[in-house]
Amino acid sequence: MKSPSVVGILGGMGPAAGADFARLFVQACAAHLQALGLPVSDQSFPEHWLAQVPVPDRTAALDAPHAGRAGAHQPLDPMLQALGRLAALGATTVAVACNTAHAWHGLLQQRFPQIEVLHVAHEVAHDLRAQGVREVGLLATAGTYRAGLYDGVLRDAGIACHLPTEAERERLMHGIYHGVKVNDLALARDCFEPVARALAERHGLSTLILGCTEIPLALPAVPGHPRLRCVDPAWVLARALARRAYAGFREERPMLAA
Amino acid sequence: MKSPSVVGILGGMGPAAGADFARLFVQACAAHLQALGLPVSDQSFPEHWLAQVPVPDRTAALDAPHAGRAGAHQPLDPMLQALGRLAALGATTVAVACNTAHAWHGLLQQRFPQIEVLHVAHEVAHDLRAQGVREVGLLATAGTYRAGLYDGVLRDAGIACHLPTEAERERLMHGIYHGVKVNDLALARDCFEPVARALAERHGLSTLILGCTEIPLALPAVPGHPRLRCVDPAWVLARALARRAYAGFREERPMLAA
Repeated sequence: MKSPSVVGILGGMGPAAGADFARLFVQACAAHLQALGLPVSDQSFPEHWLAQVPVPDRTAALDAPHAGRAGAHQPLDPMLQALGRLAALGATTVAVACNTAHAWHGLLQQRFPQIEVLHVAHEVAHDLRAQGVREVGLLATAGTYRAGLYDGVLRDAGIACHLPTEAERERLMHGIYHGVKVNDLALARDCFEPVARALAERHGLSTLILGCTEIPLALPAVPGHPRLRCVDPAWVLARALARRAYAGFREERPMLAA
Repeated sequence: MKSPSVVGILGGMGPAAGADFARLFVQACAAHLQALGLPVSDQSFPEHWLAQVPVPDRTAALDAPHAGRAGAHQPLDPMLQALGRLAALGATTVAVACNTAHAWHGLLQQRFPQIEVLHVAHEVAHDLRAQGVREVGLLATAGTYRAGLYDGVLRDAGIACHLPTEAERERLMHGIYHGVKVNDLALARDCFEPVARALAERHGLSTLILGCTEIPLALPAVPGHPRLRCVDPAWVLARALARRAYAGFREERPMLAA
């Protein structure tokens, strides 16, 4: 049986989200194998490497004077170094475990044409469109809003995207930086929950994208809103990475069945 | 400020336990920084790499005819390959996220004298002795029992170690292989809980070592036994790895304070 492909996870942004992405990827692989009726064992998982490297703050770099110029190289350099190492380890596909870092996706992909760097917003838009979703709210970092990471991609997929107010965005940032990133999940939840509720109620939404890997760590769902679906882009991305890892593996199935 | 050292995690045995070890390591780093009164941010974590590589079953290899001969090279080869890659990535210390795999600890450490390969049982024995614990029960895989990974180390530390009966050990193996490793945590819990309870009650124990990385994933504590302390060796090992990563970093503190 042909082995699954080696894949990589570019993490450290923050490290808790990176470790959680590894967990989601393992879960996505198990689900993939089970859906194909294949046995799950330690040896049936793809070789994968999680790089947790210190990367300067992404939102701060996007906020720097002449964004895309002066500050923007700061997160890019360590991401390129880690990506090069993942490529050297044999990774054919890499997922970046940070939504905001996707502001540098184009440059990462351009420098490493030999590997596929997944784009989280493309994967989310693709999934939502397949499910017939037409309207969503987006909770994210200031950097993700500023870079417009989801807006255009969702629009191209025919999905309207509603954003929080400026004050609500500041509250989200507070919960991410003073909550999840310093391991105070209660404070984070107190920041995220009212914003999620207000955004959903203001536009009558049934779907929210939790577009920062740190948000679902504190708020996987909105209490009291059982019908409000919270999409975790990390889970969507983890499933996409699992599909890539098993792509060659899957092709072999007809021969095995024959 | 001097950066913390690069460290590595040798995982994939199983992959869920490896990903969970990365989570514990991130948590241990945050706790370490907080205990030193240092700020916690994405950039204050050590660079670390998680290698999740397919490794043949450890217990099966230890069970093979002429154990330590015929089957024993099977897990060793991929572990050595991954360890070499972690060394090439700059790791100075590596933790192996699998108790049973420590049967090959001596060979791994011997082949890579330039890095420190932590030994989980040594770290656990050291911690328990410091806390004045004199008697424990050990839940583990058949391979860990067979290799005597904990027994001698605990004995040297003056700690008596009680083991489950043969039938109880089989039940643990069932929970690990047909529960945690295939993502059926309810089945795993049904296997682990009665064994933990019986072992603790038989010997009047107040401390159990959950000596397989998969066990705490399903049974972090024994319900109805609030005073029975369950030691997760992965957490002990994660804290040891965090201390190594910050060892040079910590030495710099007096200069910073001056």
